[in-house]
This record gives sequence, structure tokens and C-alpha cells, in this order.
Amino acid sequence: MKKLLLTAFTPFDGERINPALEAVKLVKDKIGKLKIVKLEVPTVFGKSIETVREAIEREKPDFVLSIGQAGGRAEITPERVAINLNDARIPDNEGNQPIDEPIFPDGENAYFSTLPVKAMVEAIRKEGLPSSLSNSAGTYVCNHLMYEVLYYLDKNYSLKKKSFTQRDTSSLLFSEEERSSVVKAGFIHVPYIPEQVKDKKEMPALPLSDIVRGLEAAILAVEENELDLKKAFGSEC
Amino acid sequence: MKKLLLTAFTPFDGERINPALEAVKLVKDKIGKLKIVKLEVPTVFGKSIETVREAIEREKPDFVLSIGQAGGRAEITPERVAINLNDARIPDNEGNQPIDEPIFPDGENAYFSTLPVKAMVEAIRKEGLPSSLSNSAGTYVCNHLMYEVLYYLDKNYSLKKKSFTQRDTSSLLFSEEERSSVVKAGFIHVPYIPEQVKDKKEMPALPLSDIVRGLEAAILAVEENELDLKKAFGSEC
Amino acid sequence: MKKLLLTAFTPFDGERINPALEAVKLVKDKIGKLKIVKLEVPTVFGKSIETVREAIEREKPDFVLSIGQAGGRAEITPERVAINLNDARIPDNEGNQPIDEPIFPDGENAYFSTLPVKAMVEAIRKEGLPSSLSNSAGTYVCNHLMYEVLYYLDKNYSLKKKSFTQRDTSSLLFSEEERSSVVKAGFIHVPYIPEQVKDKKEMPALPLSDIVRGLEAAILAVEENELDLKKAFGSEC
Amino acid sequence: MKKLLLTAFTPFDGERINPALEAVKLVKDKIGKLKIVKLEVPTVFGKSIETVREAIEREKPDFVLSIGQAGGRAEITPERVAINLNDARIPDNEGNQPIDEPIFPDGENAYFSTLPVKAMVEAIRKEGLPSSLSNSAGTYVCNHLMYEVLYYLDKNYSLKKKSFTQRDTSSLLFSEEERSSVVKAGFIHVPYIPEQVKDKKEMPALPLSDIVRGLEAAILAVEENELDLKKAFGSEC
Repeated sequence: MKKLLLTAFTPFDGERINPALEAVKLVKDKIGKLKIVKLEVPTVFGKSIETVREAIEREKPDFVLSIGQAGGRAEITPERVAINLNDARIPDNEGNQPIDEPIFPDGENAYFSTLPVKAMVEAIRKEGLPSSLSNSAGTYVCNHLMYEVLYYLDKNYSLKKKSFTQRDTSSLLFSEEERSSVVKAGFIHVPYIPEQVKDKKEMPALPLSDIVRGLEAAILAVEENELDLKKAFGSEC
Repeated sequence: MKKLLLTAFTPFDGERINPALEAVKLVKDKIGKLKIVKLEVPTVFGKSIETVREAIEREKPDFVLSIGQAGGRAEITPERVAINLNDARIPDNEGNQPIDEPIFPDGENAYFSTLPVKAMVEAIRKEGLPSSLSNSAGTYVCNHLMYEVLYYLDKNYSLKKKSFTQRDTSSLLFSEEERSSVVKAGFIHVPYIPEQVKDKKEMPALPLSDIVRGLEAAILAVEENELDLKKAFGSEC
Repeated sequence: MKKLLLTAFTPFDGERINPALEAVKLVKDKIGKLKIVKLEVPTVFGKSIETVREAIEREKPDFVLSIGQAGGRAEITPERVAINLNDARIPDNEGNQPIDEPIFPDGENAYFSTLPVKAMVEAIRKEGLPSSLSNSAGTYVCNHLMYEVLYYLDKNYSLKKKSFTQRDTSSLLFSEEERSSVVKAGFIHVPYIPEQVKDKKEMPALPLSDIVRGLEAAILAVEENELDLKKAFGSEC
Repeated sequence: MKKLLLTAFTPFDGERINPALEAVKLVKDKIGKLKIVKLEVPTVFGKSIETVREAIEREKPDFVLSIGQAGGRAEITPERVAINLNDARIPDNEGNQPIDEPIFPDGENAYFSTLPVKAMVEAIRKEGLPSSLSNSAGTYVCNHLMYEVLYYLDKNYSLKKKSFTQRDTSSLLFSEEERSSVVKAGFIHVPYIPEQVKDKKEMPALPLSDIVRGLEAAILAVEENELDLKKAFGSEC
């Protein structure tokens, strides 16, 4: 049985709750043929990385999917790319506030998600939920974790690259055995839930039960789509 | 058994669906001790009014609650007030486009909703859904219908006013019999649903199942709150 | 020479500045043939009203135009209507927080602006600035002041109403002398300026110099348009 | 005298005008000690690249700054990074619509802007204008051009990298002569102007004269800041 490591951050930026964490707690333990292993991750530069690395080595998952809060977004947004940069607007939960620093000096400038992000968006929409593909995971702890997981898997659990992005690891250039050694990873940002925005001006929110349902639909899409869809989900500009 | 007439508009402005109508179709037929009678209303100045008046005389409801689409809003928004003005940005479904005309020359400049609007907002929020109180139903067919229903009920099914707004009809100044003759009314605007916004730029949406759940919670609040809550739900500016 | 009393509120809601006040300070003292008299008004229920009433009696203006901040709006928005309701989300600058109270028990449910609001929107747009017509001035001190000024002028400086709204006072039903005794009034909400939104999430703002230019264009439109434009500036829903 | 090549795209996506192009036409021809050379660029994949490459070889500029429209944004947003991906939501002006294709198979996954982006944001804000740093230039022709220019300059007009990003080319590791051979480049997205949003629902816009002033302030910041500011301009999430 294949396994998906599902991580969620603790509350930050003065919020009492993190909708990512509340939703992950409610996600089913088995989705399709995937066993779901859950992990709470501190909203702290560095420490978040160590927490997830340990879990990867302990659990040996086939997929790593990290969930974070994007206050102000109206949709559930799978992330397309993580960049090699820490630039914190506010201190993290232990007071670190790196500004314009590389995450790993020997890493790529960016890594693309190795999950089928467009199939995930489509699956969430089929549930009647709002979703779109995001091209920026920001420059805070969320991007930091997404980048680091992809960096770590690229170094340790990927195929030797023969093509331009990691998204091609699923291609037929590799044997079944080679392909089964690969661990794929990605990130989803979720909106505030309504109780967080009561005192915020015109801030969009999505009910918690919808976020749970959206994450479950996205995870099922991860299992069912080795290759991503070829659809026009590009940006406005 | 008390009765609530629940109306919803047909699609307009080039949309194939109206989330108000789709949601009303799915609302339960009995909520608390209220029997729900549903009515589809054409998005047409004048004709919408006639349709609802006929239903009021036929059904003799205790409450009239009208539902409309407010594309661009992120929340389910009970309306506080309707103004004596038709000013259409676009033609209605039969081509009428009144500009700066009074709805009824002998009407008040505005009528306040006679439903417990703050209790409705609170009830929707308790379902984990986004809601706030709106101070403008616009100047199109939605405001037109809300105004007209309140005007008609004020003339025919209200107590002689002894206080500043209609919201006081529930006070103890009147006998039980007098009070039972009153018909109360109001309006709720609902957001787009996700399938409507796929090609619109950063437009918020709420899943249809949430809109249904929110309307049912609001209707229960109508039954349970003869007097409205005294809470600070005022505007930002 | 005709005179326009131009009022602006002091900062509130934790802001250090009020863009309305900063802009009014920079508006020219003479616009077209209008002499501009400026007045700072405390953001306090009741006291704001007294301040403006005294100025009306002292200055005997032909027009009263009040300016307030609407944080979150992206446009300069002349207001169409004020409602008979105080419902404060937050305390005012002296700690008053009325909830669901009428402003004047003997007032109309609402008063429409007696200024040419559509001509004002059009004039602001012709300057290349963003503007639209608003149908709600809220339920806080801004609506309170707009309502009260219109109430006071309606009682003391208007013609006996022969038609549905005050906007018809300019019609030809009255003699020149009768018409010259009328004082017209209205309200404009302005956006945050950029320095206020640096730490707010995706909040729109308009440069101060643009707000000044927009107010001057609107004031010129007040002078030049005894009757308002008949254009489709209605709402979305 | 140093030279800055300032490019702007033609209108696209059904718009009659492109505020980037209108603004660039109005930008001064000399800013600080910089000579400004302007270039109109077709909104076409591939062709846009050729147009700018030819201009680089012809003009031999010290800086290349490209301007594009980001409809829906409320601020002037210097871009931090361009990614190696074409994913077009809509066809370009010649009907091309690449989906999930690399821009250059041998390019980096992403390139960071080599301009002082934070100093540019700060300079625009000092003019009283709204600005923030963007972490995504999208996946359409704008990102395409920004990526390609950085790719081309990286291959032909950069120093051998000794550090993690191109932003360090200004460091003291290199001689004056080496450093003078470098060409730096970046991108700024600008909002709609008001006349474009009259019929769009609640869409922010910035007056054209402000966009011009903002671009001039940003260009002056390019000249005056060889090193970028070290300030917390990171993202929300």
C-alpha cells in the first residue's frame, strides 16, 4: 500500500488557529489506495525542515504533501514552484526573520512541484469547491518547507534528470523499479476559515469542512494521476 | 404551522445559472416548525413584484424571504435596508433598464428589513460559513423586489407604526392577535458558486452546498428570533 | 459668489491620519465660481453634527460636502443615500458605540443626496481617476453626519416637497428665489492612501494628490450641474 | 552616460490599450544620469524575445527594464523572479498558446531579477504611490520575456557566478571593469488604468500619471542602488 505524508503548520502571525492544521486533523486516514500519515510541523525556519526530514526517513512515504495557510486567498491553491529564498515579512514562531537569504546555496534557483498540480485543481473543482493553480508559495516558512522537501527528494529520492523539470520523472524513460524509488512532493495553500475573518475587512474565507473535502479530493488526484493534465491553467498576466 | 415564502431569481447578466435559485431548490421543505413554500421569480422589473404579490395572497405566509445573487461578494449577506430607487446598470431579462426612477412615488425613501438580520448572520456563522450584514441591496431588481415586498406588507400586513422603524413591530406594544397579523420580510444575497468564476479574475465563490446550509440556518434563525440580537455588526466606515 | 462648506473627519480606528482630512487641507480655496470653506469635524457621534450645524449657520453655504475615509475601497465614491441608523462596529473617538439606534426618530428612513452624484463620478473619471457611485455610506459616523446634514437641510433649507426625492428640488416647479434658498448636501468616501496600507494585506490605496484632484473635479461638477446626469451608474446586483 | 532599455508590451486579452505601453511613452528620456531608450514589444511568445535581443545588441544598454500589465493588481509591482515555464491561459496576439513548456531546456529553473527590487519598491512608495514586491510574474508572455532576458544576459553579459544568485554580481569580488561589463535586468507589472475598469466589477486601477511617476522613481532607484536594500519585504504566507 502506498503512503502519503501529509504535513500541516502550527498557527502563526497572531492567529489562534491554522486552518491547514485543523483540516489535516480531519482528513481521512485512507484515501483511495493511499495510507495517510499526518505530521504537525512548527512554523519555524529550519526546525520545520528537520521535522519533515525525520518523518520522511521514518515513514518512507511515496508522496509528501504539505499544507499551509494563505490568509487572503479565496481558493484552495496547489503550488507550482518553490524558490531558493527566505525573506520573512514577520518573525517565525521562534523569532527568526531571515531576509533575502538562500535556503540552500547549492540548490537550484527553484524547484517545480512533482505532483500533478493541474489534476489536483480539477479534482477540487469537481467537488464544487473554488481552486486555482498558484505560481508563488511566497518567501516565508511555507515556501521554505516546500523548497527544502523538493531539494531533499531531488538529491536523494529522484531519478537522474534527463529532462528539463522534475515533472518528467514519470515519463517512460525509466524502468518501473527506478520509478518506484522516486518520492514526489508538493504544497497546497488553503484560505482562512470564517471564524478567522470576522474582524478582518472583506477578507475571503472557506468553511473548514470544504477545506477538508478539497484536500481529500486533491490527494485522490495525486494517487490517480501519474502524469499531470495538459490544460490551460496559466496565469492572468 | 407557520409558513415562509422563499423566493429566488432566475439567471441574469449572461450567467447560465443563478446560485440563489439552485440553492433554494435544495433547501428543505420544513425547517424547525416552519413550512417552506418556494417560488421562482423572473429577473424583470415589475413582473417580479407581481409574481411575489400573487404568491403572498395565495399562500398567506408569515414570512417572505427573497434570495438573489451578488456576484463578487465572498459572504452570505442578509440585507438591512431597501431604497426607493430603480437604477439599472444593465437591462433586465426583458430589456427594461430604468434609470433613477422611484419604485413607488408614495413609498418611504427606504424600508428596513423586518427580519432579525443580525440573528441570521450569527446563525450562518455558527455553521462555520462566512456571513456579514449588508447595508445595500443595490439598485437593480434585487433591491426593487425587497423594497416592493416591504412596501406592500407595510401597507397591508403591518401594525400601525408607533416607533421609528418597522423592526419594532415585534415589541410588546401590541396584542398577540395584532402581532400575528403581521407578515415580516427580508432579503439575502449569496455569492457566486465556484463553477461561475473559473474564468473570472480572482472572484470569490462559495460552494452550493454551503449556500444551502447557510440559508437553512438563516431561516431557522427567523423562526427562533422574534426580536433581533443587539450586537455590533455595523460597517467599516 | 456661491459658497461650499467642505468638511473632513479626524483620524479614527487606530489610524494616525485620515486621508479625507489630509486631502481637504490641500483642496484649492476657490473652484470655478465657488468659494470653498473648510471644516475639520471630530469623528464622534453627536459632536460631529453640532460642529457642522454651527458652521452652516455661521457660513450660510449653498452646498455642504462632507468627506470621509472608506478603508478598503479602491475608488473615490460619492454616496447616493444615508439611512436613519447608527450601528457602530467600533467605538468613536470619545468611546460612544450606539447599536441599532435611529439618528432622528422623526426623520425619514433615508435621505438621498441632493448633489449631482453621477455628474461627480463622471467628472472624477474624466481626470483619469477611479470612481463609482456608492449606495451605502455605512452605519458609522460618516452615514450619521450625511444623514443629519440632509435631515437638517430638509427641515430648514429645502422647498416643500412636491416630488419623490429631494433630487427634484432643482426642477422648474419653483421660482428662482425659492430655489436659491435651498442648501444642497452630500458625501464622498475616499480610499486609504498608500502609506496607510503598507502593512495591510492586499488593501487598495490611492495617492493623496489623486484624491485632492478628484475632490476638486467633483466640486466643480457640483457647481456646473444643477440637474444630475441621466446615466446608467447602477449597482451590480 | 549609462543607458537603460525600457520595454513595454502591446495591448492583449481584448484590451484596447496597455497601460504599460501608454506609461512608457510618457516616461522622461533622461532620468538621473541614465539615458532612456524605449522599445515597443509585441505580446507574442518568441517574437517578444527576438525584439528585445536585437535591441540589446543594437543599443548595448547597462540595464533592461520591461513593463507589463497585471490586470487586477492594485499596486506597481517590481518582480523578484521569473520561472522556466510557458503556460498560457489565453492565446497571445498571434494565436500561440503554449501549455506547460520550458522556455529554454538548458536554462535554470528560475532567474532572480538583478535589479535592486526592494529599493525600487521603496522609491515608488516615497512618491506616495502604492507598491509592493511580487514573487510571481505569472506564466504568460511577461514571465516569458523576463526569463528570457535574464537567461540571455546570464549567458552573455554576466560575471562567472561565485555566489548563490545573480543579485551578488554587484559584490566586491569583482573588478570595476568586470562589473561594468554586466547588464542587469528586471520587470515591473503595473495595474489597469481607470478607463479600463469602468465595466469590470470592483477592479482596482491606478491613474496613468501615477504609473508614469512610479516608473520614473523606480528607474532612478535602479541608477542609485548598486546593491539592494536589506529590508523585510517578504510575502504574507
